[in-house]
Amino acid sequence: MRSPVKHSTHRLEPLLNPASIAIVGASNNAARIGGMPIAHLTKFGYQGRIYPINPKYEQVFGLRCHADIESLPEAPDLVVLAIAAADVLAMLRRCAARGVRAVIVYAAGFAEEGARGAALQAELEAYVATTDLVVAGPNAMGFANLNTQAHTNFASVFNTAPMQPGRGSVSLLTQSGNVCAAVYAIARRLGVDFSHFINTGNEACVDFAQYLEYLAQDDATDVALGYIEELRDGERFMQAAERFSRQGKLLVLYKAGETDKGSEAVRSHTSALAGDQAVYQAAFRQLDIIQSNDFVQMAQLAHLAGYRHKSAGRRVAIITISGALGAILADKFIALGLDVPTLPQALQDTLRSGIPDYGMVSNPVDVTGNVVNDPGFVRTAMEALAQSDAVDAVVIYAPGYMLDRMADDLCAVSQKFARLFVAIDTGAARTREQLRAGGVPVFEDIGVAVSALSPFLLWQERRRNNRWLDLRGEAPPERTALPPSLDEYSTKQLLVRHGMPAGAERVATTADEAAAAAEAIGYPVVLKVLSADIAHKTEAGGVRLRLQDADEVRKAFTEVLASVRRHAPQARIDGALVCRMESGVAELIVGATRDPVFGMTLTVGLGGVLTELYKDVSHRVLPVDASMAREMLGELKAFPLLTGYRGRAPGDVDAACAAIAGFSRAVLALQEQADEVEVNPLLVRERGHGVCMLDALVLPAKASPHNH
Amino acid sequence: MRSPVKHSTHRLEPLLNPASIAIVGASNNAARIGGMPIAHLTKFGYQGRIYPINPKYEQVFGLRCHADIESLPEAPDLVVLAIAAADVLAMLRRCAARGVRAVIVYAAGFAEEGARGAALQAELEAYVATTDLVVAGPNAMGFANLNTQAHTNFASVFNTAPMQPGRGSVSLLTQSGNVCAAVYAIARRLGVDFSHFINTGNEACVDFAQYLEYLAQDDATDVALGYIEELRDGERFMQAAERFSRQGKLLVLYKAGETDKGSEAVRSHTSALAGDQAVYQAAFRQLDIIQSNDFVQMAQLAHLAGYRHKSAGRRVAIITISGALGAILADKFIALGLDVPTLPQALQDTLRSGIPDYGMVSNPVDVTGNVVNDPGFVRTAMEALAQSDAVDAVVIYAPGYMLDRMADDLCAVSQKFARLFVAIDTGAARTREQLRAGGVPVFEDIGVAVSALSPFLLWQERRRNNRWLDLRGEAPPERTALPPSLDEYSTKQLLVRHGMPAGAERVATTADEAAAAAEAIGYPVVLKVLSADIAHKTEAGGVRLRLQDADEVRKAFTEVLASVRRHAPQARIDGALVCRMESGVAELIVGATRDPVFGMTLTVGLGGVLTELYKDVSHRVLPVDASMAREMLGELKAFPLLTGYRGRAPGDVDAACAAIAGFSRAVLALQEQADEVEVNPLLVRERGHGVCMLDALVLPAKASPHNH
Repeated sequence: MRSPVKHSTHRLEPLLNPASIAIVGASNNAARIGGMPIAHLTKFGYQGRIYPINPKYEQVFGLRCHADIESLPEAPDLVVLAIAAADVLAMLRRCAARGVRAVIVYAAGFAEEGARGAALQAELEAYVATTDLVVAGPNAMGFANLNTQAHTNFASVFNTAPMQPGRGSVSLLTQSGNVCAAVYAIARRLGVDFSHFINTGNEACVDFAQYLEYLAQDDATDVALGYIEELRDGERFMQAAERFSRQGKLLVLYKAGETDKGSEAVRSHTSALAGDQAVYQAAFRQLDIIQSNDFVQMAQLAHLAGYRHKSAGRRVAIITISGALGAILADKFIALGLDVPTLPQALQDTLRSGIPDYGMVSNPVDVTGNVVNDPGFVRTAMEALAQSDAVDAVVIYAPGYMLDRMADDLCAVSQKFARLFVAIDTGAARTREQLRAGGVPVFEDIGVAVSALSPFLLWQERRRNNRWLDLRGEAPPERTALPPSLDEYSTKQLLVRHGMPAGAERVATTADEAAAAAEAIGYPVVLKVLSADIAHKTEAGGVRLRLQDADEVRKAFTEVLASVRRHAPQARIDGALVCRMESGVAELIVGATRDPVFGMTLTVGLGGVLTELYKDVSHRVLPVDASMAREMLGELKAFPLLTGYRGRAPGDVDAACAAIAGFSRAVLALQEQADEVEVNPLLVRERGHGVCMLDALVLPAKASPHNH
Repeated sequence: MRSPVKHSTHRLEPLLNPASIAIVGASNNAARIGGMPIAHLTKFGYQGRIYPINPKYEQVFGLRCHADIESLPEAPDLVVLAIAAADVLAMLRRCAARGVRAVIVYAAGFAEEGARGAALQAELEAYVATTDLVVAGPNAMGFANLNTQAHTNFASVFNTAPMQPGRGSVSLLTQSGNVCAAVYAIARRLGVDFSHFINTGNEACVDFAQYLEYLAQDDATDVALGYIEELRDGERFMQAAERFSRQGKLLVLYKAGETDKGSEAVRSHTSALAGDQAVYQAAFRQLDIIQSNDFVQMAQLAHLAGYRHKSAGRRVAIITISGALGAILADKFIALGLDVPTLPQALQDTLRSGIPDYGMVSNPVDVTGNVVNDPGFVRTAMEALAQSDAVDAVVIYAPGYMLDRMADDLCAVSQKFARLFVAIDTGAARTREQLRAGGVPVFEDIGVAVSALSPFLLWQERRRNNRWLDLRGEAPPERTALPPSLDEYSTKQLLVRHGMPAGAERVATTADEAAAAAEAIGYPVVLKVLSADIAHKTEAGGVRLRLQDADEVRKAFTEVLASVRRHAPQARIDGALVCRMESGVAELIVGATRDPVFGMTLTVGLGGVLTELYKDVSHRVLPVDASMAREMLGELKAFPLLTGYRGRAPGDVDAACAAIAGFSRAVLALQEQADEVEVNPLLVRERGHGVCMLDALVLPAKASPHNH
């Protein structure tokens, strides 16, 4: 018996959990788009009311067929339009007049098909905005609610993939109908049971983020598997993802467009502008989203999510009956970011009591094939592992009959303790279902097991303590106005106010002022032209280094200004900046740019051409505090250069992190006024001696008065 | 009907394809190691003679049981010893006396188990060396010949994995019995049919390379899937791998020990010393071996190898019914090193004739869902793709019934043309077997398809033109003796003779000679102490840069020698080297080290600390010619620095490649005399201006007279 359907008050409820469905353009042919949804609805036992609509028929699939929506006995929750693009708008007007709540538009021929289609879609959007209608598509394959069998799709995958036996709690949400069908087919083969099957089509009126928001509040959804080509509403998306995280629901997303060729194909497919992959990756991690680019991995993650109430984390104990398989598992886990810590001596001693000399007890643990003959020891070992502080999860590799002999003990220990135990059986154990029911997920391939377990265990650990979601919830810093001139000095002073340090430096408007400034600061000094109009000071002859006395400074002032005037006669020159000549351990680049989807995002790297070639940078969506800054620096492959590599002096990493946090506050305080802020380089001095900006710039927003 | 068994004359033939098998320690219990091989032999229908041996029984599994090997009616090809370690040596002597040809030793308790076991194994090895016996193991799970059902194993996987219906041509060769069983189980689930099941145990007398050599000459083996922890005989391994390549057989190897933790586990497992992963990777590629670290991928590669006679290569045309899936496939192929080239205009025009406007024709090609209704067009499109010069292979994604509608055309085109066509069906196409029989491999998952296809297509391309195997076959350069002193000058001169250029430089033994040398070379010059005993010249005060005239040179000579004498009073000083002060575009490090498995291997990278942190280096087993050197440089992420990055001058890449080839000749000419040779840095000047060594060193072999 299925439990009665509950309805939420969410705006998309009639679309995704309708009590009544009308199909305009109904057909008796199950192979046609007007016939397939009715075939599915009747075949799979939808309990709501079904209204085929087509003046040509009396009956469709044994159901009474109505001539038009006006003659229906009620205003249906949802109308499916299996009609041509040209007829859609007129029909939407009739739906609105009839009091329909939601509509799905199958028709292609809109924004994905050139200028004429785009115009038609714009007209549709404009009309719908004047109504209360919820309109899905156009160019969509339709939906399925697998718990109510509300099929509003023409997806032939439901004819071939085996229907799940009961309720499911995994929802599919994709920006491609074919991907929706492909993931569904693969995941069904692997035994995943679904709640919603959603593909968004052109998203004229309802976008990906709104569906995600629905799934976040949907009691029938514990896990969402998504496929994204483009996000249209980044802020709404982030809010929905945050809600997933706060409720302990798992969100797994595939982001298309890794390479230019892929992006190109996606663009011509949905006219979407793909964002920056690295920023998506950072944002997903900050939002506790697992990023996947493998359909099998997605399905396995959905399976694992069923065990997310068990305690787990990155430190894995590996128990095998084979040293080789233990080594293989350890390698794979470590390569994917997990730890395989050496076990504490007391735990090793406990294990050694039942493991022969040629077995291993450090981790991976090789219990050897003999151990399964000693069930008392298996129980003792598992209980010890379940209680050790040194690990977060236990993975057991034992093929076929060996796993069978351990199964009772494994289930008992799993039920007694909170810790996650996972089994891998490349053989044919008869106890697989017993183990799964007993709280122990079972995998039948090593590669698949590791590829799903690694991100799942990291997710389990990260979501327990997601600083960023809290940081995001805090009040933003007070707005700071952009200074009237965006020269180097004003820009640095703006950043200094938020905690990003500058070196000793003064503005001089005459040669004598420059010399006086140098005397005050102390030699040697650097003299740089001060002008918001000169982007490349060195190329313009606007920089002099290592000036040793007042005469050199005066001379440099005069020469620099002359050179810059020659080089850029139109530039407004505000004088020169006299700075202490600084030296340090390393130079960082710290920059923020406005991502079209996620807003201001921070990039940190070590300066220089090799960093660029090696793409050795770390990204985060703002805000970033000092501890997140530390994490970012730690992700750089060149990070050892900051901590005393090969006898070099270690840099002041703490000061760098504090400065980056100040930079984050400054950028957020500028709000919409700047599109880009950059400190390059940020000089890192020896530990204990702080950091300082050597140069900084702000690019004002395109719409700002600075950009005229 | 099975075809009659053919026997080769190879030394391992009685081990792997025996005509008669005796089992010492025979048991009636199929769960025991003395019972399981007999159970398998009788159950699976081995046609040779089976001799159970155990004085306790009259009959075992319905077969007459003999008291001892002496009372057998013939000397069996192969004896399986299911007895304890302590009894093995005595039994081997009896086997030798009886005229037995081969023996498998199951027993553990040898080198894998401490010093006592190692001594026992050494005794066994020493004895076997005095006989003609071929002895496998000890500590081995035994073999199976799946074409004759000669089971000499105690692997329970044969009780659970479904037995293949006919002959197979895929051999398994692993250094772990459990890995052998795990790969077998997974691959059988995926439909792979096997010839040999081999695990090598401790390799006391027969090592991995010797089994590989057997499989190379074995008519029943087209593909070998291997798992390696350690190679004991690198040269023999390379010869066997080369034979695989020359015969067009596919060799897929999993090399354990990617991370330290994994290596540690492997070491305690088989007391193996893991080699350098990067060198293994290079050697495998040079030997046309596909490296895999995934059992499913290995199985799928074995499946694909059945289609290796089709023409294929790295340039892939992707045909889908979905823009999104096309983009996903393109991304994945490109990420794994394949090309998805834009199709030529004429081919695009042909495709456009049958594809609607909203489809794509450039590649990936989105034929749209409608196209399957136009079978004439499918045929036209496939024939055009089969004949285009712009691609090497065609991958079709079409789920379920869509693929079914294309199947006849696909088979027809595949049979008419040499080119490889591959289908991916995430649905449930009924024509999968028809397609496979028609020459079109079918995958049911996108990730799995890409992960197997990418290395397979690259292998197909590379093996057509493997320069290195030819190079390896050429006569080595004539032996060059190490000079009596390995100071910088002598070392450079040694390398110069083989084509590695040095700058203008002269040896001076007095200050006046130094000045005269500088006058001859031209200023500025560098002066460096000349001594084979000073490893770090700069630290010893032994280097002076930018000397501008004769006086500076004289002074520098005196000071440098004084400083070095103070710093290293024991060092023998041969004078100073006066060199032209050189400058260039970039600096390379070019080094050769002796790998314990593969011999002298070359490493090339850009100099500097970041290269080290980013591990941006390329490796090859020697010899390396100029074109291989070019390939190595091209693999460096920092390569753009050599070709004019961001307005820099391009370097003389051709000269660098010629110099690296000269370096390779020099190293080979030294033969066993040196363990390490390094040029660091090799200065690369602007294009057209060549390269030159700035420093070079040779580490003589440990056994050489230079190392006393």
